[in-house]
Amino acid sequence: MQMEFTAKRIAEYLNGEVVGNPNEKILNVSRIEEGEPGGLAFLANPKYEKYIYSTQASVVIVNRDFEPSQPVSCTLIKVDNSYQAIAELLEMKEKSKPGKKGIDKSAQTDTSATIGKNVYIGHFSVVSENTVIGNNVKIYPQTYIGEDVIIGDNTIIYPGVKIYNDCIIGKNCIIHAGSVLGSDGFGFAPMDDNNYKKIPQVGNVILEDNVEVGANTTIDRAMMGSTIIRRGTKLDNLIQVAHNVNIGENTVIAAQSGIAGSTRIGSNCMFGGQVGVSGHLTVASGVKAAAQSGIASSVTKDNEVIQGSPSLNAGEFKRSYVLFKKLPELREQISRLQEQINELKKKL
Amino acid sequence: MQMEFTAKRIAEYLNGEVVGNPNEKILNVSRIEEGEPGGLAFLANPKYEKYIYSTQASVVIVNRDFEPSQPVSCTLIKVDNSYQAIAELLEMKEKSKPGKKGIDKSAQTDTSATIGKNVYIGHFSVVSENTVIGNNVKIYPQTYIGEDVIIGDNTIIYPGVKIYNDCIIGKNCIIHAGSVLGSDGFGFAPMDDNNYKKIPQVGNVILEDNVEVGANTTIDRAMMGSTIIRRGTKLDNLIQVAHNVNIGENTVIAAQSGIAGSTRIGSNCMFGGQVGVSGHLTVASGVKAAAQSGIASSVTKDNEVIQGSPSLNAGEFKRSYVLFKKLPELREQISRLQEQINELKKKL
Amino acid sequence: MQMEFTAKRIAEYLNGEVVGNPNEKILNVSRIEEGEPGGLAFLANPKYEKYIYSTQASVVIVNRDFEPSQPVSCTLIKVDNSYQAIAELLEMKEKSKPGKKGIDKSAQTDTSATIGKNVYIGHFSVVSENTVIGNNVKIYPQTYIGEDVIIGDNTIIYPGVKIYNDCIIGKNCIIHAGSVLGSDGFGFAPMDDNNYKKIPQVGNVILEDNVEVGANTTIDRAMMGSTIIRRGTKLDNLIQVAHNVNIGENTVIAAQSGIAGSTRIGSNCMFGGQVGVSGHLTVASGVKAAAQSGIASSVTKDNEVIQGSPSLNAGEFKRSYVLFKKLPELREQISRLQEQINELKKKL
Repeated sequence: MQMEFTAKRIAEYLNGEVVGNPNEKILNVSRIEEGEPGGLAFLANPKYEKYIYSTQASVVIVNRDFEPSQPVSCTLIKVDNSYQAIAELLEMKEKSKPGKKGIDKSAQTDTSATIGKNVYIGHFSVVSENTVIGNNVKIYPQTYIGEDVIIGDNTIIYPGVKIYNDCIIGKNCIIHAGSVLGSDGFGFAPMDDNNYKKIPQVGNVILEDNVEVGANTTIDRAMMGSTIIRRGTKLDNLIQVAHNVNIGENTVIAAQSGIAGSTRIGSNCMFGGQVGVSGHLTVASGVKAAAQSGIASSVTKDNEVIQGSPSLNAGEFKRSYVLFKKLPELREQISRLQEQINELKKKL
Repeated sequence: MQMEFTAKRIAEYLNGEVVGNPNEKILNVSRIEEGEPGGLAFLANPKYEKYIYSTQASVVIVNRDFEPSQPVSCTLIKVDNSYQAIAELLEMKEKSKPGKKGIDKSAQTDTSATIGKNVYIGHFSVVSENTVIGNNVKIYPQTYIGEDVIIGDNTIIYPGVKIYNDCIIGKNCIIHAGSVLGSDGFGFAPMDDNNYKKIPQVGNVILEDNVEVGANTTIDRAMMGSTIIRRGTKLDNLIQVAHNVNIGENTVIAAQSGIAGSTRIGSNCMFGGQVGVSGHLTVASGVKAAAQSGIASSVTKDNEVIQGSPSLNAGEFKRSYVLFKKLPELREQISRLQEQINELKKKL
Repeated sequence: MQMEFTAKRIAEYLNGEVVGNPNEKILNVSRIEEGEPGGLAFLANPKYEKYIYSTQASVVIVNRDFEPSQPVSCTLIKVDNSYQAIAELLEMKEKSKPGKKGIDKSAQTDTSATIGKNVYIGHFSVVSENTVIGNNVKIYPQTYIGEDVIIGDNTIIYPGVKIYNDCIIGKNCIIHAGSVLGSDGFGFAPMDDNNYKKIPQVGNVILEDNVEVGANTTIDRAMMGSTIIRRGTKLDNLIQVAHNVNIGENTVIAAQSGIAGSTRIGSNCMFGGQVGVSGHLTVASGVKAAAQSGIASSVTKDNEVIQGSPSLNAGEFKRSYVLFKKLPELREQISRLQEQINELKKKL
């Protein structure tokens, strides 16, 4: 990534303050622990502060309240929020790249589909009957869009995504490679002969605006009605969202988590990786679940922090887990108590 | 979904009994909690009973033994099994849709392949050398079928499925988008120099009849012999089945579970999501594993219910987990016991 | 798989010793528990020793130090390492098959791409601008290779793999179907209005030589810099590797494990299935993690064996877990202690 800016110009763009040499030239961006001369790095996570004292990067963007505890040799740009600031810079840079455009002649776009303006559809992609593609949508190669699908403006669909019939994707969504939206929910009625009868899944999937879906994530269609991911929610890679799940706004779920059928997750939740949530539950808003938590009953308190499998309040889990580690010691204490009691008994 | 039936006609079809207005018109199906006038809903899970007293649906299918505890304003259709009944209705409806047919001219079907009657092969799909496709098979776009594969009659393969050479798929199977069958098992021989030597995987995958495989699930080919999924078994999304695994008939495994190499799972088992099973084990028939269980040793008792990681009998796990939560209290009790003993000692 | 060799000839190839009939004819290979006359099997895992006394296989490859505890009716070939030996035999056999060659005319190879000698590119694959493909590379159908990608000699890419722009793949790598390399890391800056701002991910993914990646695994591109998988490392199916992760040489990770962002894993580690590692940690070399372990803090000791979630030293975990199972008993003991103390108190 090539840029040719001075620290001063970047500080102006970010509404920040230069501490050091305002004329320092910036040639590229890099991580603070790997910085090179001419590099622009940033410091957001305090865990990485140590690197600012040794980085070779010429300029580092820091939070306005950052006070170095040792001398730093690089120029600092102080901003309100260094993580947001680097996001803005990278976004500006990304936007300056020429975008993909046009419908490749190998793509199969059904004549009944409606295609917006300024759309990209890559090699070997399929857009099926009656589907509506908004303006500025980018559909990378080898993507399958089923029948009666709606895709909102500015959405990006990476290679190999599969979207089944009837799904509705909002505006400004990003769906990464290999994800599957609208596959059948896992519904079977047990029969008297031990066989299972498939329950047809006649609902769909709805992604509201500004949703991001990671690579190889699966979101099943509803049995009836809709599986819904609300506005602004971000799903990482390899996540399972079962039929009729409803995830609130601006919830962030890390990789390999799974939400079982008909469960409702609130807004502004944060789940670590490999979290599981059982079916038919309700999880309140603002709930934080530690990685590998197993949520087996509804979480009714907003902003609760939970951990463990089955999950408990995280504080309670931690207090119990400390003692789990000490169980051999506790057993030893119990044995010693018995010995003391035996001694006392003898004396009586 | 548009239907135009009366409660009476549907009750006849389902061999059920109308309680209420037999001439109630049904226009569509919906979930009981989202019902609208003209809607047909069903009640199977007792957790949802409360909705029957407020639903706007006009007709609700219930189990024959259901007795409302409050007045209901909708018409009821009482049947032996409401979940099966709705499955039958939806299936009838699905079957009335015109099916996909014909081999798309962009599909690459090798001249040595044998293609049955009434087959659909979608855009950009590949059918390789010597492969045999049964009658009425539907292969959606962008699917890859390797060499010497056999696919039984009536099987449906959704977009982007990849089936490696030599795999055998039974009749009436459904394989959802993005699943991979026949990828190499994970087998490496450690060498003296810390490198690993790949063990070629020369076996295959066999799916018997009526198997359903969810989206983005992976089933590895055997090192030698076959990885086998028996008749009627249903696998959800994002499941891993390793080489030489053998899963019995009518077993149901929820999303993100994984079965390590050479393990045998019995018939009629039910596994929750994110269950893991170690390699070279045997799990008896009818075993139920709670979500996130880690099965680290063979389960020899049919119909056992297990939970935890490593998994225990579920009853035992629950009894221990209740006390895990109370560990701080137990430790407190131990301290108090010591204090009392100290008091007693002083008195002697 | 058809072979026509004698026990003697195979023993010579493997530098092994025949115990039994050197002229025994071998027609195929099979698992020891499924052996048939004319079959060649092997015994490496002692768990399977019992089958050598009943197998119908004509010849079994065993370790040189194997001494049967009962009579065996098959001919034995004794070698230094039976698992490596069977690997060599199967590899020889695999190499004798004619390989795929040539660029299919339906593949879309950009004119600016550089393609090596003896390359296979299958149906409907895409090779984008400025990408460099080494010699003897095999790219199966429906694969997407983005812009500015480098793929080293002899690498095999199975159907439907998606490789985003700028990724670098070493020599002799194998990437199984459906895997995604270079998707965006999961990075979002929280905004004051509860929305998240996407952090553009401008780095890439680097796979060094001899890396194997299983089916439907996802490896995210770095935010800046590179997500790196070092030489000889083997990743199983459905694994998540987040942005800026660095995995050392010859590390083996089983299916459905996930490594969160910026974590560094050492060399020669072995992780069981469904292991999770939190972000920004360091795991030393030679560490073994039991299946379903949750590594929530750095592991600083080489070769440590860990288990549990959050993970502990495996010995400690096992000692505590034994007592977890006995918690009802421990509580009972505590109650009995209290009773005894009460008795003592009365007596005083």
